[in-house]
Amino acid sequence: MKIIKTVSQMRKLSLKWIRQGKSVGLISTMGALHKGHRSLIKQSREENDISVLSIFVNPVQFGQGEDYKKYPRCLQKDKRLAEKEGVEIIFAPSVEEMYPQGYLTFVNVENLSSVLCGNSRAGHFKGVCTVVNKLFNIIKPTRAYFGQKDYQQLKIIERMTKDLNLNVAVIMMPIVREENGLAISSRNSYLSGEERRQAPVLFNALKKAEEMIRVKKETDSAYIINQMEHKVRSQSKAKIDYIKICEPESLKEIEKISGEVLVLLAVWIGKTRLIDNFLIKGDE
Amino acid sequence: MKIIKTVSQMRKLSLKWIRQGKSVGLISTMGALHKGHRSLIKQSREENDISVLSIFVNPVQFGQGEDYKKYPRCLQKDKRLAEKEGVEIIFAPSVEEMYPQGYLTFVNVENLSSVLCGNSRAGHFKGVCTVVNKLFNIIKPTRAYFGQKDYQQLKIIERMTKDLNLNVAVIMMPIVREENGLAISSRNSYLSGEERRQAPVLFNALKKAEEMIRVKKETDSAYIINQMEHKVRSQSKAKIDYIKICEPESLKEIEKISGEVLVLLAVWIGKTRLIDNFLIKGDE
Repeated sequence: MKIIKTVSQMRKLSLKWIRQGKSVGLISTMGALHKGHRSLIKQSREENDISVLSIFVNPVQFGQGEDYKKYPRCLQKDKRLAEKEGVEIIFAPSVEEMYPQGYLTFVNVENLSSVLCGNSRAGHFKGVCTVVNKLFNIIKPTRAYFGQKDYQQLKIIERMTKDLNLNVAVIMMPIVREENGLAISSRNSYLSGEERRQAPVLFNALKKAEEMIRVKKETDSAYIINQMEHKVRSQSKAKIDYIKICEPESLKEIEKISGEVLVLLAVWIGKTRLIDNFLIKGDE
Repeated sequence: MKIIKTVSQMRKLSLKWIRQGKSVGLISTMGALHKGHRSLIKQSREENDISVLSIFVNPVQFGQGEDYKKYPRCLQKDKRLAEKEGVEIIFAPSVEEMYPQGYLTFVNVENLSSVLCGNSRAGHFKGVCTVVNKLFNIIKPTRAYFGQKDYQQLKIIERMTKDLNLNVAVIMMPIVREENGLAISSRNSYLSGEERRQAPVLFNALKKAEEMIRVKKETDSAYIINQMEHKVRSQSKAKIDYIKICEPESLKEIEKISGEVLVLLAVWIGKTRLIDNFLIKGDE
């Protein structure tokens, strides 16, 4: 396994791979690797000649007062995990390498970026798109792997990739969960023991929605959301940021459920903001 | 010469060229080719194995009430000129091919895009950046050629290319002028006989600035701009949009001239908006 820190070195490799006709899988991360990332790496290893793991805590996707400074950083541990999983290349540039002095360019997917998490985190998805665009340009992957947990992020990247003719296959991998249902996330490390006990409430609220839609054939989004809110409030001290039911491609809110829907929520457990979602197939 | 109309066909060719190690020059135009474009093509032909001319009147860089609909289109004439100049490939996609239904992604260079022409034409440079980004992704040129007439556009594209790690050499070519000094532009075709007589006033005002800076060693921008305004008003009925003296990289306005400066102006001759600029070296 090789660790690369500069754009120019990474670019040389990616050009070589293109000339050799090799397929390249990219797993772009902010480090603090966990089982979710491991499933992305495994899939990339199966589908590509070479797997590149990028590790970069991207300052431009954090808003003022968000957790950029305290975001977990553990490069040595990440390296060991990546090596064990058979990653060929880690790309771990510095902030100065990615955003040198005088940097001014941003990529934005309009509409999709201003709803849901984009409404709570102004500028977040512009930051995500910009860094992913740069990583795609530098690494030139054949395929790029993202977890369903960040569903909105994935849809935005998919849209950007198509719109800007980036010729990368964006692949969604299922959410990896703990036994109690909690979606695995680097931010779970912020949770205290008591908070961790409350955190499965997101999963439980989604299970409630699933039961209402699939078993009880409920089609009224407002009523389902109301029951989910009740679930969250009765089982935790969590503060709800949003609970929504949306069309899975446009992310537009749906009043009456028909066909597949995306049920998603963001809640604050103490000072930690957690997100989760289910794709649920209602009756057509 | 081959004419290509789809992204997928163009992409196949560009991938082939990369694998063959061929250098590719891109001249991205909105058609209505003139001597200015010809100088870009000639330079590209000298420096690259293959020259691609793109012809696309880009709707997203025109504002409401601007001349998108009346912009000159003459593909047959353009083809003949391109063939004569030895262009290998014309890429001429439709609007639907470049911006299919559901399109949402835009690239923007902040700060540089909101001053000068960006101040008069809201969203213009965002549209330019977006289409050039797409063309770079589709065609993957080694070098891309732009005329100095659109100096601000060139600086913005240069910044975008660097910021987003696009690995394209952005090359500036000198302004081509008519004998009377008028910078050649597709929009000159809008001018009536009387307007055409007045149009060299942009060049004359720039010559005035050059004389003041280089011969008279004048360093007071406000005074030079005042004299340029006087020149324009005394020699034409033109309506001045702006006259500015800027630092050539940051495009920030300069009060006291020292070293190289960019003197630029935009004026309305009747219903036609014309731009021009000089890079002028004052005393250090």
